[in-house]
Amino acid sequence: MRAATYHGPGDIRVESVSEPELDGDRGAIVRVTHTAICGSDLWFYRGETDRDVPSRVGHEPMGVVEEVGDSVVSVEPGDRVLAPFFISCGRCEFCRKGLHTSCVNQASWSGDNGGAQGEYVRCPEADGTLVRVPDRHADDEDTLRSLLPLTDVMGTGHHAAVSAGVDAGSTCAVIGDGAVGLCGVLAAQRLGAERIIAMGHHDDRLEIAEEFGATDLVSERGDEAIERVQELTNGGVNHVLECVGATSSMETAIGVARPGGTVGYVGVPHGLGDGLDLSPFFRANVTLNGGVAPVRAYAEELMADVLQGTLDPSPIFTKEVDLDGVPEGYEAMDNRKAVKVLVKP
Amino acid sequence: MRAATYHGPGDIRVESVSEPELDGDRGAIVRVTHTAICGSDLWFYRGETDRDVPSRVGHEPMGVVEEVGDSVVSVEPGDRVLAPFFISCGRCEFCRKGLHTSCVNQASWSGDNGGAQGEYVRCPEADGTLVRVPDRHADDEDTLRSLLPLTDVMGTGHHAAVSAGVDAGSTCAVIGDGAVGLCGVLAAQRLGAERIIAMGHHDDRLEIAEEFGATDLVSERGDEAIERVQELTNGGVNHVLECVGATSSMETAIGVARPGGTVGYVGVPHGLGDGLDLSPFFRANVTLNGGVAPVRAYAEELMADVLQGTLDPSPIFTKEVDLDGVPEGYEAMDNRKAVKVLVKP
Repeated sequence: MRAATYHGPGDIRVESVSEPELDGDRGAIVRVTHTAICGSDLWFYRGETDRDVPSRVGHEPMGVVEEVGDSVVSVEPGDRVLAPFFISCGRCEFCRKGLHTSCVNQASWSGDNGGAQGEYVRCPEADGTLVRVPDRHADDEDTLRSLLPLTDVMGTGHHAAVSAGVDAGSTCAVIGDGAVGLCGVLAAQRLGAERIIAMGHHDDRLEIAEEFGATDLVSERGDEAIERVQELTNGGVNHVLECVGATSSMETAIGVARPGGTVGYVGVPHGLGDGLDLSPFFRANVTLNGGVAPVRAYAEELMADVLQGTLDPSPIFTKEVDLDGVPEGYEAMDNRKAVKVLVKP
Repeated sequence: MRAATYHGPGDIRVESVSEPELDGDRGAIVRVTHTAICGSDLWFYRGETDRDVPSRVGHEPMGVVEEVGDSVVSVEPGDRVLAPFFISCGRCEFCRKGLHTSCVNQASWSGDNGGAQGEYVRCPEADGTLVRVPDRHADDEDTLRSLLPLTDVMGTGHHAAVSAGVDAGSTCAVIGDGAVGLCGVLAAQRLGAERIIAMGHHDDRLEIAEEFGATDLVSERGDEAIERVQELTNGGVNHVLECVGATSSMETAIGVARPGGTVGYVGVPHGLGDGLDLSPFFRANVTLNGGVAPVRAYAEELMADVLQGTLDPSPIFTKEVDLDGVPEGYEAMDNRKAVKVLVKP
């Protein structure tokens, strides 16, 4: 089969690789029909984090089940499925409490499982990981495009909103206008937030934020951005969605948080340099809640809304490529020419 | 009047100073009958934080009201009162939501307000700050000793327990065997925790922890301590009370936290060096909740329990001095010869 493979910073190649094989009773092989390039893929692409060379890439698979192990009960060959960025078992303490990202049997999509930016992936824990798309929606291209973000960014934006305690009537600020931040706006709107302040630096992305329900757009930087939000809210918001994970975005988060408020953070902490200065959080009793998003836990409720037409994160896909176009997709995201790239292998 | 005054690291003197004068309608003058030396006083005493020289010290006053301003409604001359370590107005948004430490009119006890380790203090916001002890208990020395920790460490330990989400039946770990950690154990027990693991390095203090309700004592250090708690709990606790505020104690906190759990932290972050490494919190979705304790918010409920005899933090006072003994009190706490020193000016 063919798959995108990482060969070093800036070097993604589509090449022939061995096809993943079913291994164990609980596994499944999925032919990938839709996948995406993630903001977090840019870290190794830019050389900001280490990654084995060569290695298969991609962690947002959607496709059709080709083969299942003997004990699999929830999906069968021919089913359209999507899967979160982590493989989880569904049986352990953490899966059962909705914290699939702490699954004691967790695995990643790379390595022998194939990498989602390729023709096939193996899922060693089909029942715990794969989410079946109901048959009547399984071949509707528009629906599938709207469901694909549930593999990662939509669930992650939702986790930010939930972690920040967003509720009906809330006033919140969303830091970051990447795909996760935009999905955070959408999630806050879905949870009933009354005022959603989207903070970012790209006009085209802030336009999507507005389409997604942002009531205020703040494009200033640093202290000016903080002052603007403080002014807009007479002293800060009780709910901050931190969707970046950098030192500057954490500083913005605490800067716009109202004393006693909560920062829901889902941006993988990177570039935090020497660490987080906890003092301003301490002084103002601002809670820091969140972490790597257990998107598997949110898949059913978000899918229900997509299928009934009340949730559509697909506008984040501003570019589409086939498998051969994956290197070009990375380039486009690296240059910020695309918010998020949809890949159809 | 006479008051303890800071003259530089290791140099506390008791000297004649000007008496604080009533200033404004909302103020009160309190003759201090009981106060204490705080673990946080050791930071300037040890030269770890800067402080003006000379400056009055002490922030845990209990005493008798001498004089009140015209608009004061809740106390009158002759009343026995205690007061939290921060002065708060009781009228602003944050006081009204129980976050008195973010009071927009907050003030400290030092400077012109007198310092609580002295004969008199001025409280510029009597109604918002002073807590009246009912008359029938106002002269009972044992009761007063049990109430005094409500000015700071008992309220702070309680804030750690509340922030960590401790509830009936909880299993929790308390990091630190100083006065705040010990009060954290007592607070967890009061909230109904079923298993309380006290972590510290001093046998005499861990004995108090046991008396306060700790079910398990862990005196190992570093990784060994973490392993011990992991073993005791089959993978960590959902509720961690971090009562120190140092890098090593935060590492212990995340080390003993179960994925999805909460660290309630009340130790003023100091010696955190370059900052907190957020990555392990992120990976395991461990919430970081807490901050400087709004002990004013907790005063009534804790006082009710002290007065009915179901709460008694007074065993933390392992040494008592008069005003002249304050320098000796600092020395005893610095050398860890006393857990906490009670001062009777």
